[in-house]
Amino acid sequence: MPPAININADMGEGFGAYDIGNDDALLAIVNSANVACGFHAGDPTVMQGLVMRAKKHGVSLGAHPGFNDLWGFGRRRIDMKPADLEYMVAYQIGALQGIAAYAGIRVTHVKPHGALYNMASENEDYAAAIGRGIKAVDPTLIYVLLSGSVMEKAAEKVGLKYAREGFDDRTYEDDGNLTSRKIEGAVIRDPKVAAERVVRMVMDGVITARSGKKIKRRVDSLCIHGDEPTAVAVGQAAKDALIAAGARVLPLPEMPLG
Amino acid sequence: MPPAININADMGEGFGAYDIGNDDALLAIVNSANVACGFHAGDPTVMQGLVMRAKKHGVSLGAHPGFNDLWGFGRRRIDMKPADLEYMVAYQIGALQGIAAYAGIRVTHVKPHGALYNMASENEDYAAAIGRGIKAVDPTLIYVLLSGSVMEKAAEKVGLKYAREGFDDRTYEDDGNLTSRKIEGAVIRDPKVAAERVVRMVMDGVITARSGKKIKRRVDSLCIHGDEPTAVAVGQAAKDALIAAGARVLPLPEMPLG
Amino acid sequence: MPPAININADMGEGFGAYDIGNDDALLAIVNSANVACGFHAGDPTVMQGLVMRAKKHGVSLGAHPGFNDLWGFGRRRIDMKPADLEYMVAYQIGALQGIAAYAGIRVTHVKPHGALYNMASENEDYAAAIGRGIKAVDPTLIYVLLSGSVMEKAAEKVGLKYAREGFDDRTYEDDGNLTSRKIEGAVIRDPKVAAERVVRMVMDGVITARSGKKIKRRVDSLCIHGDEPTAVAVGQAAKDALIAAGARVLPLPEMPLG
Amino acid sequence: MPPAININADMGEGFGAYDIGNDDALLAIVNSANVACGFHAGDPTVMQGLVMRAKKHGVSLGAHPGFNDLWGFGRRRIDMKPADLEYMVAYQIGALQGIAAYAGIRVTHVKPHGALYNMASENEDYAAAIGRGIKAVDPTLIYVLLSGSVMEKAAEKVGLKYAREGFDDRTYEDDGNLTSRKIEGAVIRDPKVAAERVVRMVMDGVITARSGKKIKRRVDSLCIHGDEPTAVAVGQAAKDALIAAGARVLPLPEMPLG
Repeated sequence: MPPAININADMGEGFGAYDIGNDDALLAIVNSANVACGFHAGDPTVMQGLVMRAKKHGVSLGAHPGFNDLWGFGRRRIDMKPADLEYMVAYQIGALQGIAAYAGIRVTHVKPHGALYNMASENEDYAAAIGRGIKAVDPTLIYVLLSGSVMEKAAEKVGLKYAREGFDDRTYEDDGNLTSRKIEGAVIRDPKVAAERVVRMVMDGVITARSGKKIKRRVDSLCIHGDEPTAVAVGQAAKDALIAAGARVLPLPEMPLG
Repeated sequence: MPPAININADMGEGFGAYDIGNDDALLAIVNSANVACGFHAGDPTVMQGLVMRAKKHGVSLGAHPGFNDLWGFGRRRIDMKPADLEYMVAYQIGALQGIAAYAGIRVTHVKPHGALYNMASENEDYAAAIGRGIKAVDPTLIYVLLSGSVMEKAAEKVGLKYAREGFDDRTYEDDGNLTSRKIEGAVIRDPKVAAERVVRMVMDGVITARSGKKIKRRVDSLCIHGDEPTAVAVGQAAKDALIAAGARVLPLPEMPLG
Repeated sequence: MPPAININADMGEGFGAYDIGNDDALLAIVNSANVACGFHAGDPTVMQGLVMRAKKHGVSLGAHPGFNDLWGFGRRRIDMKPADLEYMVAYQIGALQGIAAYAGIRVTHVKPHGALYNMASENEDYAAAIGRGIKAVDPTLIYVLLSGSVMEKAAEKVGLKYAREGFDDRTYEDDGNLTSRKIEGAVIRDPKVAAERVVRMVMDGVITARSGKKIKRRVDSLCIHGDEPTAVAVGQAAKDALIAAGARVLPLPEMPLG
Repeated sequence: MPPAININADMGEGFGAYDIGNDDALLAIVNSANVACGFHAGDPTVMQGLVMRAKKHGVSLGAHPGFNDLWGFGRRRIDMKPADLEYMVAYQIGALQGIAAYAGIRVTHVKPHGALYNMASENEDYAAAIGRGIKAVDPTLIYVLLSGSVMEKAAEKVGLKYAREGFDDRTYEDDGNLTSRKIEGAVIRDPKVAAERVVRMVMDGVITARSGKKIKRRVDSLCIHGDEPTAVAVGQAAKDALIAAGARVLPLPEMPLG
């Protein structure tokens, strides 16, 4: 059986009069959409529009909860009590479920956003609080998390199915973490380079760090972006290369997860 | 069969470090709780605490969506597009459903808050937009609305079951609307006076306006308040009088609704 | 002495990760900038950047206070108590003054935004509350208001200097109000048409309504926009035509105001 | 010359329908008020009311800027870029200045709130960013900061006058930091105990840590609280004891500061 891979992207990040991102181009590439839920980005009207388009594209639907910090776009770390964090995640998932009813589709995964994702990948308390929030709302939801991070253990302890995520346009450090965007070259803008890396990541389970070191890392879901001018071309090239290499590209609910 | 009546109250209106209301006293009286959903009041942590206590008291759960205006406590009219309003209502219902999963209980009714309720009671477009938002999320939800207002017609057109609401501590005008709080005497603070009025309202379907005029008005659900020093005593007296008069006091899902 | 005219535009309407408008192009045309103050748009960082650029361009600085409604971009009417409204305006002016200190320049005018402007142009209570907020902070501030509206009387009663505003890219109705944007043709996109209209407005004090009716209307300040693809070209054409017609184009503090 | 001491308290922390704190009791004790500026607490109407009462009591006025986190009451650490932080502080000071114009009084000091204060006391970058924001708005403002912390150095480098703060109702650790509230006994609720400690702190410049260790620490301003049931009595006792011991109790602008 050839390897299976999911492709996801963050979407629905407009707010009121403000627009951002490149949702239409991304919807034509991905299998799964992570929809902002009104805390770090998104509003009920933006969410409703995204949900309808996700259905039309046959894209599976995920909540993308973030910190309650529109000014910081959810990218600023906020030191919250785990219980507050947990209920905040449950609230946002529920809100998207309410909106998803317009399209008659179900929310099937949850991926935390920005600083919430980063904090969870380093701090098992945060990762577990997110997991408990997910499980409380619907224990069949898939927790999308950073491959190789403490989030995996948290998801296992909480008892959730999870998908290990990798990135098509980012370099990695020796410890398996993403290179900080502040470092020159951290974002891969050449579609060919990205495509080659992604094939090795998905088909062989190997990520090559900046140093050249090979890191063993299972990736179930590949995150592509829409915010760099080159991002959509990079994402398309990654997908094409994976299909050419024989991978089955699937929505998250159809993925064989550990 | 003796008349049935439901008693509801607005709750969960704290936010962060701020507390308000008298939820514990009200939970001991009411059959149904209208829970603020984080827009005009309430936050995920407050909502979670309220949901757990509602379950413990056997109180049925309703969403109490309001305008996105914490500063105005949802009491300021905001001129929204009907579609934005509709999705805003659906969002808030979904958010409470997400939190209600912690208690394993269902959201069974929706009552708009403050200025949203007032605008809907005068403007069928608003009333219908709220109704569509409710129906999209769950068509079995009961729409709690002002008895005798255009909200009744809106609920019928949208195709929702609804409960007609009356108030235990407020006087009425000849047209069936509530007397403005700005007018002296608009709030009834004498438990005995309130109890007598409520019995006539529920048992006979008659409200006596300030002028003395009798208004025919069916009431399925009686709203009691917690925000006046006398409110809880007034609410308790209303309930006791209804039971003494032979009314069956029921949660909303058990009410025989038109 | 040839007629004097000011040209203003709304700016600084980005927020966090979100950008909007066309500030750089507008700064090269206008004499005066109306800066969003963080309620309907703008944040402290965006404000600081705008203030520095306004100074560099020699553009006079005004506060552009709006409703506390980022989701609605200040375009939704909110029914506030006049006192709350007044202090809300004073707060926003003060906030911009704080930021303006970075450039060592003074805030010299105030123009309300969006729905706040529209409500004030119809409701003298709102117009006066805004005026009192302005006067409390600095009685030398110029109140920019809709020419011919009740705002003029409010500014006079409060005792503020004011500038009567006209629009370069909008048609007018017979009563002197702007044609609703919902009506086809309400926005003028042809630079030549706009330029001719603006010259008549400023040099002759005459606005031609859609019906052809001539309306006598004094205009001290011309508002140009940045949000339509054609808006900057229309604004530039209006300015060029005014200069060609002999008008003196001045910052607000240098304008001879009634 | 007998030692001089200032007594300050945080105030104006209501928001919309929500009330909190004990401002009236505190205004009768303190010389200086730290007024919440609408980000972590407070709104323009609450601020206006507080400013008028501060004037009436002859209490000097300070801005109490905090993180933009009403839900967390400014008590959650947020990881902001120093520039964003700096402009956020300048914005809040300006906003209070705008409101202070109603009373015709000046803002004369700035004390950061909650998590912003705590972060600044540990992180000189934060402390300096706050200082730059203060200085940009008005270089004569007094920076109220934790005695003995890195904030002192930051204030010196930025070039601001500062007042070293101590607390009347909190125990200290050997390193001069406050004992965490999570530790039993961290809040002093006995007025006599507090009064004795405060006299030693102000008259002798000595704080006794929990361990018994004597810490040399200059205190120019004593912070009293209103949020514990015993806090006002503790604050009054502290003030009475200081006066009895011969201290001159002064508003911040009259204090001899280093």
